[in-house]
Amino acid sequence: MITKPDKSKEITTSINLLNERLHFEGSVNGNDPISIDYIPPLGENLGYTSLELLLLSLSSCLGSSALIFLRRMNKTITGFEIISSGIRKEEHPTGFKTITLQLVVKSHDVTSEDLDKVIKLSEETYCPVWSMIKGNVDIKVEYTID
Amino acid sequence: MITKPDKSKEITTSINLLNERLHFEGSVNGNDPISIDYIPPLGENLGYTSLELLLLSLSSCLGSSALIFLRRMNKTITGFEIISSGIRKEEHPTGFKTITLQLVVKSHDVTSEDLDKVIKLSEETYCPVWSMIKGNVDIKVEYTID
Repeated sequence: MITKPDKSKEITTSINLLNERLHFEGSVNGNDPISIDYIPPLGENLGYTSLELLLLSLSSCLGSSALIFLRRMNKTITGFEIISSGIRKEEHPTGFKTITLQLVVKSHDVTSEDLDKVIKLSEETYCPVWSMIKGNVDIKVEYTID
Repeated sequence: MITKPDKSKEITTSINLLNERLHFEGSVNGNDPISIDYIPPLGENLGYTSLELLLLSLSSCLGSSALIFLRRMNKTITGFEIISSGIRKEEHPTGFKTITLQLVVKSHDVTSEDLDKVIKLSEETYCPVWSMIKGNVDIKVEYTID
């Protein structure tokens, strides 16, 4: 009998090197593999970089948390997008100095007060990825409501 | 004229909501989109979770840094894999309490001293993703050499 992992408790992923540079295939059971690589000259731009995956992780975490709360407030969301930009440090380790997350929300009843509230809840309590980089990276959230 | 972004300085990604739950499409110019979702009942398991993307980010970062240094030491790597497991906290924010990265290295000339050295270099200086979660998550690295 194969027991399915309980992702609310434990998460497992794997990466496997594909070439003689830095091209990896990343995967999790049941999902399409992700092509991961680094920029030249060390890599060959054949996939997502580690820092891009970090931004996707953070933005999907914030997006999910915000959406859950907006819907609990009975708001109608007809479109939701997050554009994330990270500025890297100039010295090693060249992680992000600052990350800016730009939310583009389409809704007829969401107000800026609603967004301020759900962003605060996400930052303080409900976005696990945010909590893991907190204190190490300066994170700014902006939004527009269409 | 379109100027290509310089990823050594700034990284940009976007996610776009695809359904009325938490299914996103994540993307970066030029790469295949990544399907991102959360587990039921909030999501529908249609893609990678934010925490899976975080593990892929960290493991590819460590893997790249380790490979770069091993090759500078003129070591021959014939296979390289990292399995990552993260144990989540029980209370919100349910980020990782601990992450274990298991390196599986195929090589006839890499020693455990080599790996200890490159892992230490990565942790202390060369893995940007590690530097961004440092202090917030307990990270353990194990390895086997085949």
